[in-house]
Amino acid sequence: MIDQLIEKIVEMQNPTCVGLDTSFDYLPEDMRAGVSDFEGAANAIAAFNRAIVDAVCDLVPAVKVQIAYYEGYGEAGLRAFRETLLYAKSKGLFVIADAKRNDIGSTASCYAKAFLGTSSVGGASLEAFPSDMVTVNGYLGSDGVLPFVEECERRDKGIFVLVKTSNPSGDEIQNVVLTNGRTLYEHMGALVEKWGESTVGKYGYSAVGAVVGATKPEEARRLRAELKHTFFLIPGYGAQGANAAMLRCCFDENGIGGIVNNSRGILCAYKKRGGHFAEAARAAVIEMQRDLAQTIGEMRCAK
Amino acid sequence: MIDQLIEKIVEMQNPTCVGLDTSFDYLPEDMRAGVSDFEGAANAIAAFNRAIVDAVCDLVPAVKVQIAYYEGYGEAGLRAFRETLLYAKSKGLFVIADAKRNDIGSTASCYAKAFLGTSSVGGASLEAFPSDMVTVNGYLGSDGVLPFVEECERRDKGIFVLVKTSNPSGDEIQNVVLTNGRTLYEHMGALVEKWGESTVGKYGYSAVGAVVGATKPEEARRLRAELKHTFFLIPGYGAQGANAAMLRCCFDENGIGGIVNNSRGILCAYKKRGGHFAEAARAAVIEMQRDLAQTIGEMRCAK
Repeated sequence: MIDQLIEKIVEMQNPTCVGLDTSFDYLPEDMRAGVSDFEGAANAIAAFNRAIVDAVCDLVPAVKVQIAYYEGYGEAGLRAFRETLLYAKSKGLFVIADAKRNDIGSTASCYAKAFLGTSSVGGASLEAFPSDMVTVNGYLGSDGVLPFVEECERRDKGIFVLVKTSNPSGDEIQNVVLTNGRTLYEHMGALVEKWGESTVGKYGYSAVGAVVGATKPEEARRLRAELKHTFFLIPGYGAQGANAAMLRCCFDENGIGGIVNNSRGILCAYKKRGGHFAEAARAAVIEMQRDLAQTIGEMRCAK
Repeated sequence: MIDQLIEKIVEMQNPTCVGLDTSFDYLPEDMRAGVSDFEGAANAIAAFNRAIVDAVCDLVPAVKVQIAYYEGYGEAGLRAFRETLLYAKSKGLFVIADAKRNDIGSTASCYAKAFLGTSSVGGASLEAFPSDMVTVNGYLGSDGVLPFVEECERRDKGIFVLVKTSNPSGDEIQNVVLTNGRTLYEHMGALVEKWGESTVGKYGYSAVGAVVGATKPEEARRLRAELKHTFFLIPGYGAQGANAAMLRCCFDENGIGGIVNNSRGILCAYKKRGGHFAEAARAAVIEMQRDLAQTIGEMRCAK
C-alpha cells in the first residue's frame, strides 16, 4: 500500500492529500437550505464530497476523511462517511480514515477490523468503513497498535501513528524530556520505527507511518533524521499556519517520505475565491501543488 | 453529573459499571442463528444489551458502552450503539461512552458535540450519541481536551482522560520517567487535575476524571494520593486479571472516588455459569458487588 501511494505521488508529482473534514457549516447556502435533520445534513455532505472528489481526483493521490465531522450527525453521518470512502476509492484515490483510534488489544482489534479489515457475521466477512489507511493514537503502547499492524500485513494496508501533532498544546505532553535526554515524541517515533519493521516496502518506507505536524519544523527535521523508514502524514498546511518551506524537512533526498494534508484551505476555498465550490477547490489544489513542488523539487521513486 | 453519580453509587452501595462491549460473538447461539449482515447483527446486539440492562439496572449505577464493538458493524452498529445509550438512560443508568476520542481543538469540538453536546443543523440542535460521560485520550494536550471540558460545564457532563491504562504495554509510554523524576502518567494526571479545576462538585471530585487500570495497583495508589479531585474509571477487574484487593487503593477514606468496570465477566457469565445470559449477568453483578463492598467497606457521601 505504501509503495503504491509513493508511486502515485511521484506519477502525479503531487504529495497533496485533500482533507474531507466536511462540516455542514462549510457547505454553500443553497446546499444547506431547508435541511433540518441529520439525514438531510448527511446527504448534503456526501453530495458536497462527491463534487470535491470529482474536481480533484485527477490531481491528487489521496483524501483524508476526518470521522469526527461525521459522528456529529449520528448514524446518518456515519453513512455519509462510508459513502465518501467508497466514492473516493471508486475514483482511484487512496483513502485515509482520520479516526485516531486507540484502545487495549482486544478492542483495538475491533477498530482495526472496522477500518482496515472485515467483521465476521455468521459465515460472512463484511467491511464496515473500508479504508486504505487509518490514523492511530499510540498512548496505549504496542498491544494497542499491533492489531492494526496485523491488518496492514494481512490486507496490505497502512496506519499513521500520532507522533508530533500540529496543534499548539501538543507540546504539553509530546515535548516532555525523558531521563535519557530524548523527548516523548522521539520515544513514540522510535516505537513507530519498530512497529513498522516487518512491513518496509521497496522504497524504504514501512506501512506504519507517523503524523508529524507541518507547524513544528524543528521537531519534523529531527524526526525525519531519526525515522528512516517512517512515512509522514503532515497536517497543518494552510489554515493552521504552516507553509511549504516549513515542511521541506519532512521529505528525503528523493523528494518523497510524506504526504501533506489540507482540509479547510481546499473545502472552503470558494469563500475566498468566489465561484463554484468545486472549481475553487480545484484551483486551490493546483496552487498548493505548485507551492509544494517548488519547495520539494522533483519527486523520484528510489530507495 | 459527577455528584449525582457519586450519590447513586452510595445509594446502591455499588461502584460497579457494566461494560457493554458487546461483540456479536458473545451472544448465545440462538440469537446469532440466521444472522448474516450488519443490520441483523446490530439488531441482535441491541436486543442482548436491552436484556442485560433490564437485568442489572436496579443493582448498578452505570453502564460503559465500548463504541469499537459497534463500529465494526458499520452504520447499523452505530445505530445499535445509539439505541443502547438511550435504552440504558431510560432505565435510569449513567451512560459512559467509551470512545477514547482525541484530536486538535476544532475537531475535538466535533467529538465533544457528538457525545456530550448537540450538533446544529439548520435551526435545530440535535444529539448524535447522547452520553453522560465520554472517555478521552489526552496525547494532544489542553486544546484537544478543553472542548470536552466546555461541554461538561455547559451541559453538566463528565469525561475520563486516559492516565494509566490496564493493558500490559501501556507502560511503554505511560511509565517513561521525565527529567523532573515523575512518570508520564503522573504528568498526565497533573494535567487532568488542572483541566478539572473549574468543575469540582460537592464531594470534592471534578467532572474531569481519569482512567486508571485496576491491574496497576502501584500506579493507582500513587495517583489516588496525588489527584485529590479526580474520580477514577477503573477497568481491568475480572477478565483482565485484577481483583478487588488490587483496587482498594483507588478509593478514598469515604469509600468513594472511583467506579469499577467489568465487561466480559458480566456479558459472558452465562458461558461459565450456564442458564439464561441475563440471569447469569445479574448473578455475576451481585457477586462483584459483594466482592467490592467487602474490600472497600461502606461508601459515604462526604467531602
